[in-house]
Amino acid sequence: MQTEAPEQQSEHIVRSYEEQLKRLREMVARMGGLAERQVADAASALIRRDTELASAVVGRDGEIDALETEIENFCVRLLALRQPMAADLRLIVAAMKVSTDIERIGDYARNAAKRAIVVSQQPQLGSLNGFQWMAKLVQENLKDAIDALVKEDAAAAERVWGADAPVDDIYNGIFREMLTHMMEDPRNITAATHLLFIAKNFERIGDHATNIAETVHYAVLGHMLPEDRPKSDASAYTVVRPPA
Amino acid sequence: MQTEAPEQQSEHIVRSYEEQLKRLREMVARMGGLAERQVADAASALIRRDTELASAVVGRDGEIDALETEIENFCVRLLALRQPMAADLRLIVAAMKVSTDIERIGDYARNAAKRAIVVSQQPQLGSLNGFQWMAKLVQENLKDAIDALVKEDAAAAERVWGADAPVDDIYNGIFREMLTHMMEDPRNITAATHLLFIAKNFERIGDHATNIAETVHYAVLGHMLPEDRPKSDASAYTVVRPPA
Repeated sequence: MQTEAPEQQSEHIVRSYEEQLKRLREMVARMGGLAERQVADAASALIRRDTELASAVVGRDGEIDALETEIENFCVRLLALRQPMAADLRLIVAAMKVSTDIERIGDYARNAAKRAIVVSQQPQLGSLNGFQWMAKLVQENLKDAIDALVKEDAAAAERVWGADAPVDDIYNGIFREMLTHMMEDPRNITAATHLLFIAKNFERIGDHATNIAETVHYAVLGHMLPEDRPKSDASAYTVVRPPA
Repeated sequence: MQTEAPEQQSEHIVRSYEEQLKRLREMVARMGGLAERQVADAASALIRRDTELASAVVGRDGEIDALETEIENFCVRLLALRQPMAADLRLIVAAMKVSTDIERIGDYARNAAKRAIVVSQQPQLGSLNGFQWMAKLVQENLKDAIDALVKEDAAAAERVWGADAPVDDIYNGIFREMLTHMMEDPRNITAATHLLFIAKNFERIGDHATNIAETVHYAVLGHMLPEDRPKSDASAYTVVRPPA
């Protein structure tokens, strides 16, 4: 808990301030690590039809939510007591924004895990390789974006920002594939619908990893990335026709 | 643009600070108003099969994104130059959080509008009354949440926070209905899938209105609402069987 008055600028206070910023980065890194694990476990639960693991993911989401609140409170205290400027101010604002993104990622992983429980009791539809691949890519992007924050590495953040396109490609393929499964046999409809939403969850996780990369880039350099980021979720326009 | 040094605490400066906070509230209210209109127009476009209106919604999303950036930059400047404390600090942090929620609401409205274009070229599935009703409810919740911020009315915020349950009920009904349409006739699958995602978009808009209400409550009173908010999206567990 912070008790020194902000006016006292002794060496001790300055060191303690650095420590607080370090602690803030560590909290965000810990939250990111939890979310990575949730994404990985949600995908494993789906692919191995492991309902126990899926339930564990659902049960663990509260930890991520609690960390978001903790990070926000810590940031508000730092803003009030340290009155930070320039790069420090940007880091604190970025930490709040990033923790909101990670909290959403946790929600998406929990939602995917819930649906994985239903899918495990339905007919198997193909290999689900696309899901594994998608989950792996977004998990890597999330990890790299958080690492970029901890290391204040704007170039790494920019790489993550440009790495979301393959995720969208896989998602668009899954969307089309699931509609085809539905049309082939109405008994596939429940599973295919839940799989569509799971794919959408992973796609959204990828978007939030991209958001985090944007925020980190801004925090480190103090200016925004261009508005038009690479984005190719074309599923909103997909039309599939039933077999003749 | 802010140029006064924060140390000068003359009456003029204090008044100007009040004006800046007022301007901040107005910016958030303007952003919220734009998002409300996007939600209403996306729903109208869907129900009337009006592709021109749907395209207009897609085209207007950039205005909301631009306002988010403007609000964030304004908040960072206020934090740096005014070094606000207590309620003012909470308002500024809340404005940043709320603008992120509104930006997401804009994205969901845009996505619903995109899908409405596809749906308008597919067979009609029932009355879509549920969609109209859902859109109306979430739009009201959004409006009330933003009004609560502008008026610093914690009680109003708490009412919005508790008003999301009917939205979830309608959503759960639509989910089941769409799966049934798919099973009845494979020619319904494309439309029903897009309608499922549109319903999900409106449901997510409702969640973000609830988030905004939580943030406003915190900004006004300085303490959080309880963790367990009323929440009953049961669609993740829905199973529908094909007709025998």
